[in-house]
Amino acid sequence: MAAGGSHQAPKGTRDFYPEEMAVRRHIESAWRHASVIHGFEEIDGPTFEHLSLYTVKSGEGIVNELFSFRRAGGEDDYALRPEFTPTLARMVAARAGGLAMPVKWFAIPSHFRAERPQRGRLREFIQWNVDMVGLESAQADVDVLSTAVVAMERLGLSPSDVRVRLSHRGVVGAALIALGARADQLAEAFTLLDRREKMDPADFGARSATLGLGAGAADRFAALAKAKLPMESDAAAIGRALGCESAAAEPLAEIARRLREAGLGPWCDIDLGIVRGLAYYTGTVFEIHEASGAERAIAGGGRYDRLIELFGGPSLPAVGFGMGDVVLGLVLKDRGKLPPDGGASLLPRTDVFLISAGAPEAEALIPSLASSLRARGLHVRHTYKTTRNVGKLLSEAGKCRARFAVILGAELAEGQVAVKDLDAGSQTVVPLADLPAAVVAPPATPPNR
Amino acid sequence: MAAGGSHQAPKGTRDFYPEEMAVRRHIESAWRHASVIHGFEEIDGPTFEHLSLYTVKSGEGIVNELFSFRRAGGEDDYALRPEFTPTLARMVAARAGGLAMPVKWFAIPSHFRAERPQRGRLREFIQWNVDMVGLESAQADVDVLSTAVVAMERLGLSPSDVRVRLSHRGVVGAALIALGARADQLAEAFTLLDRREKMDPADFGARSATLGLGAGAADRFAALAKAKLPMESDAAAIGRALGCESAAAEPLAEIARRLREAGLGPWCDIDLGIVRGLAYYTGTVFEIHEASGAERAIAGGGRYDRLIELFGGPSLPAVGFGMGDVVLGLVLKDRGKLPPDGGASLLPRTDVFLISAGAPEAEALIPSLASSLRARGLHVRHTYKTTRNVGKLLSEAGKCRARFAVILGAELAEGQVAVKDLDAGSQTVVPLADLPAAVVAPPATPPNR
Repeated sequence: MAAGGSHQAPKGTRDFYPEEMAVRRHIESAWRHASVIHGFEEIDGPTFEHLSLYTVKSGEGIVNELFSFRRAGGEDDYALRPEFTPTLARMVAARAGGLAMPVKWFAIPSHFRAERPQRGRLREFIQWNVDMVGLESAQADVDVLSTAVVAMERLGLSPSDVRVRLSHRGVVGAALIALGARADQLAEAFTLLDRREKMDPADFGARSATLGLGAGAADRFAALAKAKLPMESDAAAIGRALGCESAAAEPLAEIARRLREAGLGPWCDIDLGIVRGLAYYTGTVFEIHEASGAERAIAGGGRYDRLIELFGGPSLPAVGFGMGDVVLGLVLKDRGKLPPDGGASLLPRTDVFLISAGAPEAEALIPSLASSLRARGLHVRHTYKTTRNVGKLLSEAGKCRARFAVILGAELAEGQVAVKDLDAGSQTVVPLADLPAAVVAPPATPPNR
Repeated sequence: MAAGGSHQAPKGTRDFYPEEMAVRRHIESAWRHASVIHGFEEIDGPTFEHLSLYTVKSGEGIVNELFSFRRAGGEDDYALRPEFTPTLARMVAARAGGLAMPVKWFAIPSHFRAERPQRGRLREFIQWNVDMVGLESAQADVDVLSTAVVAMERLGLSPSDVRVRLSHRGVVGAALIALGARADQLAEAFTLLDRREKMDPADFGARSATLGLGAGAADRFAALAKAKLPMESDAAAIGRALGCESAAAEPLAEIARRLREAGLGPWCDIDLGIVRGLAYYTGTVFEIHEASGAERAIAGGGRYDRLIELFGGPSLPAVGFGMGDVVLGLVLKDRGKLPPDGGASLLPRTDVFLISAGAPEAEALIPSLASSLRARGLHVRHTYKTTRNVGKLLSEAGKCRARFAVILGAELAEGQVAVKDLDAGSQTVVPLADLPAAVVAPPATPPNR
């Protein structure tokens, strides 16, 4: 039998022990906070869906990346959720008539990909999804992006740690057409742009040529893929960089202007090489990366105005993003934004550690005292060890980061207990009846903040 | 195409729209609160495990109740988690040497059963698992049960709504042996006890007889299965009811006494018919039921002192329970403990609803004002509609249960805004600079409480 037992977690999945779970909850809590204060409401769907839901927009090619299955004796094919957007689209489509628009939803479920596990990519991961459906205005794009930025800020990241790379498929498409690409070749050109960093330059040139981009045009196409513009760029400046009319560049200029107005300018760069791999984006596209370009993308998203329709719903504009916990966790660690203790200091603190010095009446009091303090909402612990050495028990109280130790000792004969403030190091003796008030925890951050 | 789109959630799974998600979070939050204040720490494991993990203790028979699968081209068989205990046992076994005992863990993940969906039983459900490993003392049983009761109390349930039905396999086993059953037939006898309510009495008698329980003994066995004793029963009283020695009844009497000391007596009944279906329980067993017996069990658990060993770990005592969200949700609804609005009032309230009366300088201020208030942690919304009719916008603020409406109107020329307290109905005019302070939300319950 292997050391530690013969059973292992499946490859590419994780066991979350308390410290690791505390880190996960720390991340999820920042995600939830940012979502709620921007007016998004939480939803969830099934962990698995009908396999056909995932082949609608991605075709049969996606099936190899899915964990798919069939119930013994059943006839339906299912797959573990590889992304949330199909579920979201299905849920919007199912109630489209009854939903107040715009719909602002977020979700924080597990997702699954049957890929080879590697740094930043696991087979099971948590992904935050934020989507706004039903609003054509660029305000939607900005609110969605603001939500992502506020979450990162809450996790301690700054514009020197992470960058939002912003582009717009419609605007870049106009530039590609100006370069000679045909409108029906745009999807192919976007795929080429998206993969350029993994391609040999000669190969990139050759494939550009097949898209109707001749020698000079292919060079300009390559240059465009590398173009970064300041967030202050207006439509004229973006048009010049892209070689297209100002009017064609206006949608990207508008997003940039609105992001600046909302105070998000310092977090963002216009990066015309960003197109996103998936075919369904129609307008704004963005990715969030570690500032130096280390690691995979932290998040990716954009506008997908035709997707709800594809899933049988009405035609509705939509914009959203997904942010996984794996790459974000690596970036937080790389940037020193996680506690060096591996998460122990993110665990909930104990409010009161009850200590009996050993007298029978003290022992007898512990169960009811613990219950009555917990009835006040206090986090109460006591030892399970047999020792009644107060020094050892105070050390155990320290290990669970208790705020107060309540010692049932000699004073109990007079109906009193010693209350030790473990943060301040001070100690007082109070009547047993005053106990809840004497150990009330300092006000904490309200929930959903 | 079907109304609302052609795609449906898989049978027995749920879409959680915002109101339904708010109800789910309400339940999970009570579970988490009760766990944390009792000193349990949250963990999680993979959503799917190697299939072999689930056949260890349940044999191949369980395979039909599992959603099992294999990655395309892969060789490993996996199954969606039907229960959490095997994952817990695996995680304890993997780090047994390095864990401080007792281990006190809880988890709130999704679980999956490939059964026919029916009232109270779905194919995907959320289950709260609370476990204490490494403590032999009945204190562990009491702490685990107290956690379950505190969660139900927090959800508004009282001892007149739900009952803990308590028994002890060791104690009932001694009684069965006293009745004539052989020690190696006890597992079979427990199974018979567990199924008695679904059996024909004659069939029950016949099967009792095959266990060595003759005519008189079978009647006493049937009576024992129906026996309910008051929580005040001591070992002698329990022994009399069971027809065994006081000494043999002591473990159950001790649990009952400790539960009374912790103030849990009013929630519990001794019910000797409770044995739990699964074979791995070794001592205390309990179920929580709606008081009238309506619905399936809300929760079930007990002591399983040999289970960690079975999963390749050291020999460690353990006690725990599972509580699903489906039956609990039905009971909360039956008992009127959920808001009649379907969960809308459980959604997070908006702190500030920003209203521009339409002047260009007011319009221009909204994005930065929203960002700066959100930077203070406030939940801020504004309209996405084109109307600038203040009355209509106040009505929109009311719909999202905003605490304050901030109106950017004529006073803006003097650098002032109107702040309407929507709960109190009062309105003041304050300088823009005083705005965060003027709309600070009242202190809310601290997190993890």
